[in-house]
Amino acid sequence: MLDDIEVSELIRSPGIKWARAGGAIPAWIADMDFPVPTPVRDAIAGADLCYPPWEDDPQENPLIGAYVRRTAGKWGHRPDPGAIRLFTDMIHALEAILWVATEPGDAIAVHTPGYPPFLAAVERMGRRLVPIPMVDGGSRWTFDIDRRALAGCRALILVNPQNPTGRVFSRDELSALAAVADTHDLLVIADEIHSELTYEPHRHLAFAPFAPDRTITLASASKAFNLAGLRCAVADVAVPRVRAALDALPERLLGQPGTTGVLGTLAAWEHGEPWLAEVRALLARNRDLVAAAFPGQHVPEATYLAWLRIDAPDGAGVKLSPGPSFGPGGDGFARLNFATSRPVLDEILRRLTRR
Amino acid sequence: MLDDIEVSELIRSPGIKWARAGGAIPAWIADMDFPVPTPVRDAIAGADLCYPPWEDDPQENPLIGAYVRRTAGKWGHRPDPGAIRLFTDMIHALEAILWVATEPGDAIAVHTPGYPPFLAAVERMGRRLVPIPMVDGGSRWTFDIDRRALAGCRALILVNPQNPTGRVFSRDELSALAAVADTHDLLVIADEIHSELTYEPHRHLAFAPFAPDRTITLASASKAFNLAGLRCAVADVAVPRVRAALDALPERLLGQPGTTGVLGTLAAWEHGEPWLAEVRALLARNRDLVAAAFPGQHVPEATYLAWLRIDAPDGAGVKLSPGPSFGPGGDGFARLNFATSRPVLDEILRRLTRR
Repeated sequence: MLDDIEVSELIRSPGIKWARAGGAIPAWIADMDFPVPTPVRDAIAGADLCYPPWEDDPQENPLIGAYVRRTAGKWGHRPDPGAIRLFTDMIHALEAILWVATEPGDAIAVHTPGYPPFLAAVERMGRRLVPIPMVDGGSRWTFDIDRRALAGCRALILVNPQNPTGRVFSRDELSALAAVADTHDLLVIADEIHSELTYEPHRHLAFAPFAPDRTITLASASKAFNLAGLRCAVADVAVPRVRAALDALPERLLGQPGTTGVLGTLAAWEHGEPWLAEVRALLARNRDLVAAAFPGQHVPEATYLAWLRIDAPDGAGVKLSPGPSFGPGGDGFARLNFATSRPVLDEILRRLTRR
Repeated sequence: MLDDIEVSELIRSPGIKWARAGGAIPAWIADMDFPVPTPVRDAIAGADLCYPPWEDDPQENPLIGAYVRRTAGKWGHRPDPGAIRLFTDMIHALEAILWVATEPGDAIAVHTPGYPPFLAAVERMGRRLVPIPMVDGGSRWTFDIDRRALAGCRALILVNPQNPTGRVFSRDELSALAAVADTHDLLVIADEIHSELTYEPHRHLAFAPFAPDRTITLASASKAFNLAGLRCAVADVAVPRVRAALDALPERLLGQPGTTGVLGTLAAWEHGEPWLAEVRALLARNRDLVAAAFPGQHVPEATYLAWLRIDAPDGAGVKLSPGPSFGPGGDGFARLNFATSRPVLDEILRRLTRR
């Protein structure tokens, strides 16, 4: 059902992305062509929109318990519910944390190529972006984990699984990163938004257990369940000094997700698993189709994004994310979003490879 | 239909408020017992939850144009679309504006009794609350407009229609307030969230035209259309220095409403008028019932809130907002929410007046 949508259908009755793609097939914005899980849709449609029960006490928000249970069940560690704070999206959470935990001029390390809004956030907040560049490791992209430039950094933004390379950091890599973070006393802001879109035989490992005293984990149902517009994200602010700094801001200064964001996320986490399993299988199939179309290029281990060395993608009739927008290491590359139906993906690959 | 709900029904199948009222009839939280307008419900249920078209440019948000058109149509002045900023709720907007436009220790004037979260926001941000107390004007509550204490204030929070007294400030009062604001060079933060719930023969007048260079207007569909949980508010930040200060913050630091908040608000403003007319008529009838039950007390000119001199409301089986939480002037009073069905209101009034 998710897999049957034809290109012609989407051109006739375009969604937001299709309407913005100017006649090309949209494969740049990082959301999926699939409708959201029915339990999420039902939760949103049926939400009581009066003042919610957590109006006077954010700690009564049911997402806090749900996030703790989900983290324990999926990733094997149990966050302190008292450390959870809600945000409207990942960029919001990242900026709020950089705002209270770092100063203008501070050096912030990011693996690059990296998620463009995070790079932009670091720059516009007057922090100094320190790229940790991608290296071709033969069978996969790797990163120079204990790169010298990390000395003197204040924080590391760890996007794992990594966007756009689709790398899932291994236990050894995460252990090494934790050791480096200790050596240089880094705050680690771990964006794990793609963790549920990891393909066999790879395993996502949460970073927090590797460096519990210095890690802030950011999560959201928005990526795995296709809910970017809901604006709901969760931060496990396990570093007491950062939590104290956040809590010292006026209580409502940073805004908050709406009831539909909270209840939609709750429904995704508590009742979305069958949908997620179906989507993940379909994405794994798509990933293999992409890999077959671009032989010799590294295959993503997670995410529905392929980081491709591709010449002059413009004009092929597919709108991709241009590599240079991902910062250092992006030249000559483009990011392809393959979260779509089989007919659409076939057409994308046909156009890109001119077969 | 809106008017038929029985107390027994709500006790059997309680919504959020009823579940929290501990057996009493809930009449304290400021939302209505009525279901939201069908166009709003439909817009939320059918919302595309992918990244919205305004993801990369907040000025593309369709609420901006809708707010400008609505303001022009209802209140006769046309805000500059470039001055509109979105927030997740009114407290969020107020705190953000106080944050960038005032300093700790600054004196902020508020008519009291006043909306408790605004009083709390001023206090927790370390600003000095300067109450402008309510005065019994014979036939209505009035306020000492040019109160001496305004000299030395940095800002005035003008809640009009006023909560909890239900006063709709007259043209003369607003002109006098504008003159005072000029004299003392006050920033005016005008919360007009109750403007659409004004009863004949009273007329809401927007404050911005009285003092265009010093007024920031806050608005939301949440009160008139019963959408508090959606978390969507609009600020017309018509004061350039305040807008510049807001814009100097990192772009996503303050979060943003979700798509359901935006589209729900849009639907309310563009298609909710018949529902609003029905609700306003019902509320006007309820207001008269309340007035008849409490003869000699001032009748609200707007809002579904009655500010009542009432002895020991506890124990009557109705949960009201205690007067002292509204700050100076609150002793001996309580606030009653009368936005409910006829059978429920009859029972509320029976219990409160022990008839």
